[in-house]
Amino acid sequence: MEFDLIDRIRRHTSVHRDDVVTGIGDDAAVVAVPAGRELAIAVDTLVEGVHFPVGTSASDIGWKALAVNLSDLAAMGATPAWALLALTTPDGDEAFFDGLAQGFAELATPYRLALIGGDTTRGPLTVTVAVHGFTAPGEALLRSGARVGDVVMVTGTLGDAAAGLRCLDEADTAPYAAMIERLNRPVPRVAAGQALRGVATACIDVSDGLVADLGHICTASNVGASIDAALLPRSSALLTHFAEADAQDFALSGGDDYELCFTVPADKAAEVGAVLSRLGCGATRIGRIVEGAGVRVVDAAGETLMPARSGWNHFAA
Amino acid sequence: MEFDLIDRIRRHTSVHRDDVVTGIGDDAAVVAVPAGRELAIAVDTLVEGVHFPVGTSASDIGWKALAVNLSDLAAMGATPAWALLALTTPDGDEAFFDGLAQGFAELATPYRLALIGGDTTRGPLTVTVAVHGFTAPGEALLRSGARVGDVVMVTGTLGDAAAGLRCLDEADTAPYAAMIERLNRPVPRVAAGQALRGVATACIDVSDGLVADLGHICTASNVGASIDAALLPRSSALLTHFAEADAQDFALSGGDDYELCFTVPADKAAEVGAVLSRLGCGATRIGRIVEGAGVRVVDAAGETLMPARSGWNHFAA
Repeated sequence: MEFDLIDRIRRHTSVHRDDVVTGIGDDAAVVAVPAGRELAIAVDTLVEGVHFPVGTSASDIGWKALAVNLSDLAAMGATPAWALLALTTPDGDEAFFDGLAQGFAELATPYRLALIGGDTTRGPLTVTVAVHGFTAPGEALLRSGARVGDVVMVTGTLGDAAAGLRCLDEADTAPYAAMIERLNRPVPRVAAGQALRGVATACIDVSDGLVADLGHICTASNVGASIDAALLPRSSALLTHFAEADAQDFALSGGDDYELCFTVPADKAAEVGAVLSRLGCGATRIGRIVEGAGVRVVDAAGETLMPARSGWNHFAA
Repeated sequence: MEFDLIDRIRRHTSVHRDDVVTGIGDDAAVVAVPAGRELAIAVDTLVEGVHFPVGTSASDIGWKALAVNLSDLAAMGATPAWALLALTTPDGDEAFFDGLAQGFAELATPYRLALIGGDTTRGPLTVTVAVHGFTAPGEALLRSGARVGDVVMVTGTLGDAAAGLRCLDEADTAPYAAMIERLNRPVPRVAAGQALRGVATACIDVSDGLVADLGHICTASNVGASIDAALLPRSSALLTHFAEADAQDFALSGGDDYELCFTVPADKAAEVGAVLSRLGCGATRIGRIVEGAGVRVVDAAGETLMPARSGWNHFAA
């Protein structure tokens, strides 16, 4: 273990948790899970040039590496507690470490998330974060509980991050700042996920694209889904700068939005929408769970649309 | 999350654990920590060309990525339970996935360690594993408890892995197979670590080299250590193939041995040695904890030796 970066992050945060028995600085961290709580655990890696563009600032990388993992906890309805960070970088540049630490800490602090360990190695730039959160027995939001007749909903707006990625090469990126911010500083829907405990029948975060990720719910739940493209929530930034066809494609198939896509019994949809509005992100009904398999997208006239892409697959040719 | 590799590993293992509530296949795993147990958590990354040579077999990579992490749990005296694996590879080669899964499973199965999640991304070859183990409150072996007068001991033999690395370029590597095996398939001292609970005052695994790692114990415990080079346990393979000066250098400063270096009160050393002999790895007294700071190595005549290297530092120039 190398503690340089980890110590830097610790200096940027001031999170103290009584459940951390032994934090950074030994062979392993020792933590105590509160009585009556189970642990949700996720790990995700960001690779330069794959998950964030070359040239992304260190602080954005630090933020995003944590955000994509907190988004996994959000999709389970879990309460964030601890993280470990494994960083591989080509060199030991101090300014880079400081920036990464600052971005990580900026997102960690409001959640009282403690960094309890990590590893720093030399090699091509990749960041892996493992996060741990609490959930009550039986309360975790799974992908497998969607039922025919459930309403499909999604938080926030879709497509901004993919649109932001498209805008990075513009000579002047200022007009697209809101979308680029969604790409570089995704906001995990942690509070929304917690509010969905006991209400949503299935939940996933939109990391690979709506159609791909809702497809995972369908597979796990042995159901199909029908989505109305006209109902997809899109930001004013997206609709201002992109033609309708592009905006729709980004919303259906763009990755990196980190919104929550979830299903609820039809009679709960209005109440859920109101609760999530109060939490600031809102939630939009976009379709229904149906018999069958897979995700079908229809336009306002009821015609089936084929998404231009079926999601991001890093191993696709 | 990508489940291709993870599913492959699952097919290679048959570990079922009642404490895994939701395993692979959702946004996060959900696990239950047994009552009265705390959780030890570690994460380590292996980078191709840094932590294993280019050309290392996929199964050796899979084994070693888990071994170095189990070694961290061993150094805490923890009982392994769950792991997550984040793999970054340049392509989605099936034979590589299968080999890696097989090597990982080969080490995981005897420990009943369950793989509960992971991530597969495209990029330069790196493998990150996060492991979780159980420990009773107050029983974890820390680096910080060494006391002046304690005996310093080490399990097994030192220097083989570094010597094995030196032998890889030989035209015929067969004579060096035992040392190369130590490099590629380190055996974490899990049972030894558990046996040291309640007895060892401090413990660390030797990953960066004895002098460097014992130095971490000294720093954390605010003590110094004096090591007798003549007492360093070396394998017959090492002593057969390398001159004394090289063998000593490997034993003092070579990384990747994954033995445990620990301290015990002097009146416990004989008993600890006997217990670890019965566990198969044995343990050798190599020195004493003294007042002061840092690690001093003396030869049989009492002369201070300077180690040729002070350990591996991936960020050193």
